[in-house]
Amino acid sequence: MSETIKQDVIVGVDLGGTKILAGIFTPQLKQLQTVKLSTKASRGFDSVVERVARCVRDAVDEADLSLKQVRGVGIGAPGAINPDSGEVIFAPNLQWKNAPLQKALEKHLGVPVFVENDCNACTLGIHEVELMGKSRSLLGIFLGTGIGGGLILDGQLYSGFNRTAGEVGHMVIQVGGPKCGCGNNGCFEALASRTSIFRELARRAKEGEKTQLTEFLKDGESITDLKSGDLRKALRKGDKLTAKVLQEAAKHTGIAVANLVNILSPQTVVLGGGVMDALEDDLMPIILETARDYAMPGTLKDVEILASKLGDDAGITGAAVLVRQRLKLAD
Amino acid sequence: MSETIKQDVIVGVDLGGTKILAGIFTPQLKQLQTVKLSTKASRGFDSVVERVARCVRDAVDEADLSLKQVRGVGIGAPGAINPDSGEVIFAPNLQWKNAPLQKALEKHLGVPVFVENDCNACTLGIHEVELMGKSRSLLGIFLGTGIGGGLILDGQLYSGFNRTAGEVGHMVIQVGGPKCGCGNNGCFEALASRTSIFRELARRAKEGEKTQLTEFLKDGESITDLKSGDLRKALRKGDKLTAKVLQEAAKHTGIAVANLVNILSPQTVVLGGGVMDALEDDLMPIILETARDYAMPGTLKDVEILASKLGDDAGITGAAVLVRQRLKLAD
Repeated sequence: MSETIKQDVIVGVDLGGTKILAGIFTPQLKQLQTVKLSTKASRGFDSVVERVARCVRDAVDEADLSLKQVRGVGIGAPGAINPDSGEVIFAPNLQWKNAPLQKALEKHLGVPVFVENDCNACTLGIHEVELMGKSRSLLGIFLGTGIGGGLILDGQLYSGFNRTAGEVGHMVIQVGGPKCGCGNNGCFEALASRTSIFRELARRAKEGEKTQLTEFLKDGESITDLKSGDLRKALRKGDKLTAKVLQEAAKHTGIAVANLVNILSPQTVVLGGGVMDALEDDLMPIILETARDYAMPGTLKDVEILASKLGDDAGITGAAVLVRQRLKLAD
Repeated sequence: MSETIKQDVIVGVDLGGTKILAGIFTPQLKQLQTVKLSTKASRGFDSVVERVARCVRDAVDEADLSLKQVRGVGIGAPGAINPDSGEVIFAPNLQWKNAPLQKALEKHLGVPVFVENDCNACTLGIHEVELMGKSRSLLGIFLGTGIGGGLILDGQLYSGFNRTAGEVGHMVIQVGGPKCGCGNNGCFEALASRTSIFRELARRAKEGEKTQLTEFLKDGESITDLKSGDLRKALRKGDKLTAKVLQEAAKHTGIAVANLVNILSPQTVVLGGGVMDALEDDLMPIILETARDYAMPGTLKDVEILASKLGDDAGITGAAVLVRQRLKLAD
């Protein structure tokens, strides 16, 4: 029997629109095990909750532990969350409205469950584990299918009056700009998310601009079916269209960072998400240069702007931190 | 002798690029007297400090009081402020850099002086006196010659890591939009400040669009010499160009409000400044409609968006609140 069996553990879950990731952590936040399942959101709330519960059970079992050893389960979910009631108020990706996630999951698992917004959870994980709690004010920005954010102010997660703070993806930075999934135009998300990058690439390719991206397509696929990693490959092959579109996305990200620095004056800005994980080396220099260009004098003094190294683990790590904080677990 | 002479008082000063306003307040924040002087910023730091001191002495004298009865002087100054050292780090309107305002003024007056950013002071005044401290999180937005803002989070003034938080005027909302005084393009300030409104009116009039604004011009004046009150008069006369340009400025303000609501989830948003004071009835309906249109679902639930009634007194009131807080004066 391994040493870990003797101690209690925490489970952190990252619930996304397409996949569920569950991680087993020691109370000191050492990661022991992860298990992944697909979300199958179209099957509805009850089915998704059952899948989350199964993912947690599987991870516990893989780590040769039993549910009795789980002190609590933290879960980061996409959308507006009420962390007190554990309800998902509104989650367009999952098509949930006022969904009692905490209660339903506690019924399945018989252990305490705590719910947070997924980007808040990622920001919390980066703050506590990657930066070891050193920053007093941290802004997390996550570039993936969409764009989300999280705020740590005065060392604490800040979610504001309606618990919705950090919706940086729907900050309009180009009035009259491209249509966003939210219905508005010119949102940051409509200019720098993976979805918007591929849409722009497809549009320009269709208009006749040359690109090597078409070489990566399997039968029946279109450019919008590709992944962030394909963009990296295209860049390495010297694809000019990909370089141009990514440069614009990075410039818009730099402007968004400057806007948020001007508004919030954070000590640290961390960028994460699938797009950053795949393209950090290509995007970061442009983001930094643009942010410095657009931020007001004095606002960036001694401020760190960096890319998170936690990758996919940010969400589960932050969800585990959440359990530690809510249960007031000591080191 | 009046009753007020027997008690100690607080002085609040609003230092602007063109005028200095000083107000005498009871410790309970009842306003007793105000005096106004021009700033004459071009004469330099020492001269401006001397004028601020004179304005304070004049106000004290007008109220039949003596400097000995002044517990402290609060001052709101435009630009980035270090409230601990009382220095003005950077104030483009005054052409100051690292200016020791607190020390210089204390030398002149012999009473404790406290310095804050002018928009932070206005927000503090509105929070404590107009809203009686009831809002836990308040966003103040001030539309005048430029656009500034202030944040109250968890009931306290929030200025962030570099003390520069609240620079909402330099949030880019239209990439590639009109040039801003800061050097960037498409800032909120370049789309909705008095300066930008008059610049747009002058540009369109020059291009041949009809306007009754020209009737208000004295010899040698151009449209950019007019005041916010002239816009109100032009609207009342049915001037279509003025209506169109103000509608656009209000729409941009509504988008900026929605951006900030999405980012910060405040309980209350208050709009103030000269443009709002003169044109509240015309601008507010458009600002509200646009903000509701652009804010994410759930973010505006039970949120108040209102125009401040304090007008020019917001700054001096907030500066007086600052003294109360710093000296920990009881009611």
